[in-house]
Amino acid sequence: MNLILLEESDFLGNDRVRIDGRRFLHIRDVHRARAGDELTVGRLGGRIGFGRIVHLDAESLEMEVRLERDPPAPLPLTVVLALPRPKVMRRVLRSLAVMGVKKIVLVNSARLEKSYWQTPFLDKEEQRRQLLLGLEQAGDTVLPDVQLRRLFRPFVEDELPELSQGTLRFVAHPGSDSTCPRDVRRPVTLVIGPEGGFVPFEIDLFLSIGFTVVSLGPRIMNIETAIPFFISRLF
Amino acid sequence: MNLILLEESDFLGNDRVRIDGRRFLHIRDVHRARAGDELTVGRLGGRIGFGRIVHLDAESLEMEVRLERDPPAPLPLTVVLALPRPKVMRRVLRSLAVMGVKKIVLVNSARLEKSYWQTPFLDKEEQRRQLLLGLEQAGDTVLPDVQLRRLFRPFVEDELPELSQGTLRFVAHPGSDSTCPRDVRRPVTLVIGPEGGFVPFEIDLFLSIGFTVVSLGPRIMNIETAIPFFISRLF
Repeated sequence: MNLILLEESDFLGNDRVRIDGRRFLHIRDVHRARAGDELTVGRLGGRIGFGRIVHLDAESLEMEVRLERDPPAPLPLTVVLALPRPKVMRRVLRSLAVMGVKKIVLVNSARLEKSYWQTPFLDKEEQRRQLLLGLEQAGDTVLPDVQLRRLFRPFVEDELPELSQGTLRFVAHPGSDSTCPRDVRRPVTLVIGPEGGFVPFEIDLFLSIGFTVVSLGPRIMNIETAIPFFISRLF
Repeated sequence: MNLILLEESDFLGNDRVRIDGRRFLHIRDVHRARAGDELTVGRLGGRIGFGRIVHLDAESLEMEVRLERDPPAPLPLTVVLALPRPKVMRRVLRSLAVMGVKKIVLVNSARLEKSYWQTPFLDKEEQRRQLLLGLEQAGDTVLPDVQLRRLFRPFVEDELPELSQGTLRFVAHPGSDSTCPRDVRRPVTLVIGPEGGFVPFEIDLFLSIGFTVVSLGPRIMNIETAIPFFISRLF
């Protein structure tokens, strides 16, 4: 936890908060903080600064906070991702939050096992928990927006053209001859397929609405490696 | 498994192999392959090509193989990494193998819990298993070399100068003012610290032997995200 995220309900006044539960235990047991110590804090959706611990008991602590700077800039990037396996889903969400991605759409795809859509990790609360862990890691305060789209074709045909309007449009696909461009300095919509890749029909549909297929060279990367690799190339 | 790795002991002759165990079960149950099917195969440490299944029974299968191309080029990169938490260690090794890193040194560091050195994941066989999974994912055949160095200072003072001779020398460190350079087109030695970062003494020691401290901007990334992010920037 490189930043303690403060929610609206933590605020006792303009510059005073009370924290309990997971964050309190982390501050007490991992940071081993005591009254008088200062920690980096940030208001969810707002500014970042310092919190000085003014009171600490067995169940909670209180801090006086000074919020004086903006969170790191978000990436001008929308990630459209074929729903990952449940096992990697949590880590992928956390990693996207760490990198500063603020718009995430999880979509269906032909090669995706239908059972993935039954995972408890799709629960909004569980998603939020992973995204908060990512923000706490990165030192950010702005929650990414996550949308689910269980119908591939209506999403790509009816929503994606407008969603990606004014952005560079890329589909990450192993084996493409075009290498992912570097340091594009423009907003991007990046589509990333399932393990095993998109089927030709899906690729054609992306091409038909103006997407370009790009790869990272001859290696086929697992999703958790490929996502930061693509994002680091682009920005 | 995007490539079936063949070990020397699999070869019955120059161009015929017998496979059992984990790979056999994967080919039978995940690829659902039958006699006559062709799969991508590679000889461990050698070339890549196709294997045609000529026989398949309850416990093993035999293939005729044609190995006709070289594996993807390795990255001209040595990664020196503070030993990760046991939980992430396996994924980090797999990810490094996926990206084509061939030289990995796991070192001690002041902020690293001593218990990490007791993890069973440091076992050579377990390491090899993760690296093979990475090669099978990437479609590569060349096993990375992994070295362990439990004494930080002797490693950095006595070994690292020669190990990093002729390469660009970078220490990844959050908060540095210098941003990691892009597309350097030269060999690199990249040092990556523990969660919480290197202590000032450690940073100074790297500086004293010619390393430059670089960051990825204001965000503090978790190790699994930071490693592909740095490598993608550099190459």
